[in-house]
Amino acid sequence: MANILVNGVGTIGKRIAEAVDKQNDMELIGVADVEPSGELRTVLEEGALRDTPLFASMPDARGDLEDAGFDVEGRIGHALEEADLVVDATPAGIDEKNKEKLYEPNDVKAIFQGGAAASIAPVAFNANANFEEARGEDFVKVVSCNTTSLCRTLYAIDEDIGVDSAVANLVRRGGDPKQDSRGPINSIIPVSDVPSHHGPDVQEVMPWMDITTLAVKVPTTLSHVHMVNVELADDATAEDVLDVFEDRPRIRLEYASEGFGSTGKVVEKMRDLHRPRYDMQEATVWGDTVTVEGDQLYWIHMVHQESIVVPDNLDAIRAMLEMENRDKSMRKTNASLDLR
Amino acid sequence: MANILVNGVGTIGKRIAEAVDKQNDMELIGVADVEPSGELRTVLEEGALRDTPLFASMPDARGDLEDAGFDVEGRIGHALEEADLVVDATPAGIDEKNKEKLYEPNDVKAIFQGGAAASIAPVAFNANANFEEARGEDFVKVVSCNTTSLCRTLYAIDEDIGVDSAVANLVRRGGDPKQDSRGPINSIIPVSDVPSHHGPDVQEVMPWMDITTLAVKVPTTLSHVHMVNVELADDATAEDVLDVFEDRPRIRLEYASEGFGSTGKVVEKMRDLHRPRYDMQEATVWGDTVTVEGDQLYWIHMVHQESIVVPDNLDAIRAMLEMENRDKSMRKTNASLDLR
Repeated sequence: MANILVNGVGTIGKRIAEAVDKQNDMELIGVADVEPSGELRTVLEEGALRDTPLFASMPDARGDLEDAGFDVEGRIGHALEEADLVVDATPAGIDEKNKEKLYEPNDVKAIFQGGAAASIAPVAFNANANFEEARGEDFVKVVSCNTTSLCRTLYAIDEDIGVDSAVANLVRRGGDPKQDSRGPINSIIPVSDVPSHHGPDVQEVMPWMDITTLAVKVPTTLSHVHMVNVELADDATAEDVLDVFEDRPRIRLEYASEGFGSTGKVVEKMRDLHRPRYDMQEATVWGDTVTVEGDQLYWIHMVHQESIVVPDNLDAIRAMLEMENRDKSMRKTNASLDLR
Repeated sequence: MANILVNGVGTIGKRIAEAVDKQNDMELIGVADVEPSGELRTVLEEGALRDTPLFASMPDARGDLEDAGFDVEGRIGHALEEADLVVDATPAGIDEKNKEKLYEPNDVKAIFQGGAAASIAPVAFNANANFEEARGEDFVKVVSCNTTSLCRTLYAIDEDIGVDSAVANLVRRGGDPKQDSRGPINSIIPVSDVPSHHGPDVQEVMPWMDITTLAVKVPTTLSHVHMVNVELADDATAEDVLDVFEDRPRIRLEYASEGFGSTGKVVEKMRDLHRPRYDMQEATVWGDTVTVEGDQLYWIHMVHQESIVVPDNLDAIRAMLEMENRDKSMRKTNASLDLR
């Protein structure tokens, strides 16, 4: 049984903690945070993590948390003595300090999230594409939501058909549903650096991939959407491509022609399935958009920014602690989260 | 055991059908619809209503549904023979035809939704305010989401303190999350009739209530918000008012000061509680906004347009079939939906 601590109970951290809690080969020994937020209170007092020990992740945070009525088990240092691995879901910048001041001195393995600097860990991780590279590692970064979706889809096409080069045009959500003071509210903001960081991020997972990415930010909170163009290395039809996607774990196909022709309508499907928080951990390709013209392949997919990296975090844990191989770990993770 | 049919599996109908299915004194004998929509497929084939019999609610719909691969049990007429009551959640206009051509000839009781014409039923219903008026009735209209929230809150204040008059200013959502082609997208639309229909709708439930409503529509999908101003008939403090709200079923208090200061943040709480579809069947008053100045009381509340009427539909069933009194019915309903 692997003892796991989750540091940072925000959008990503709360989901990873709940997911860890569902695994039969992991024990969630606690969560750590600094701020007595309403979100933390909901999750720990009324939500799925009732009775999970809470640790103060900064020395002066304990008082703040206790003053707000939280039951604090102790400082994070105590939890680190028990932990085999920490999943760090703190904001970019804090993660780096945590590595230096908490994880390295306590000799504890740690996973960082997509916002972290590339230098934070020797391995940038995506379960589909490079599970084995994380085997036994002390520090691993699970790549961001956008990068995760690109790794899953491009790795599949590359492995089964062959990718000469790819261009992905990202239409990013402005903020998450709870983040009401983020913009844009009525404008589209281009990322002025071309390529955007997502292309290089994909290359950290798949160094051989010739990929360029462009990105804009739009006024929506439900998900990102990517328009992808691939130059194929080999002949293939749209049906072949659909078969590849159909075949792979954590890629799902939805069809506009079946009534799911928008992010809102796909989210409605997740709600109708009673998925917790309407999470969709799969990269969702609109099957209707998969088109081949000569050696050019096109498609559009949707990325649920809040949850898509959750399964990859679980698999990274199993790789780093050498608990399972890729296929077995992914199967366990998928079964526990009701993913196909 | 009351045999219930739900006609119309849209935003409201699918929720009512799932809620009926959870009651131990009701049997969901089937749902009826006309369109082989993706939403219907999700709910009946993968969602909470798997294996619920589907009936075609129009003569030519059966072929359409079967052509699309749905397993159709028969025409709605067959279901009506078994049904004690139909909950009609079809669009306004269709409901009227259904009453005339289906429910009256088959001598079946029916509940209609807030969009229906006032003339469709002799009783406009809100469980908190006038449960007993529906006792034994053949046709009842459960009032709309906005009206439901006003009835719950105003009835409570009126009963415990006394209301001389009320003005409610409604900020309505443009559409539901799945309704991507509704507006407005970047504009605020005033309802040019003053009062808006909501005031008169409240008066159908509480004829003695002196209420005026104004309304605008804004670009959001999560919920409506009302700013309410009441002239009190008796002295009261803000604390008294909070106690009244605290005390009543189906009214919940949230506080901006505790991190829930927006519709997005309250929705996030519902997600963190793993509420199915993040539904919030309670009218939610922001406790911080409850303010008394002299005889003037002010507050702001939030209305989850997709789900708030669901519990009232269940209670209307019990009233019309004379199964329980108000308090027992509301308790049963609330327990089954995990409402306080």
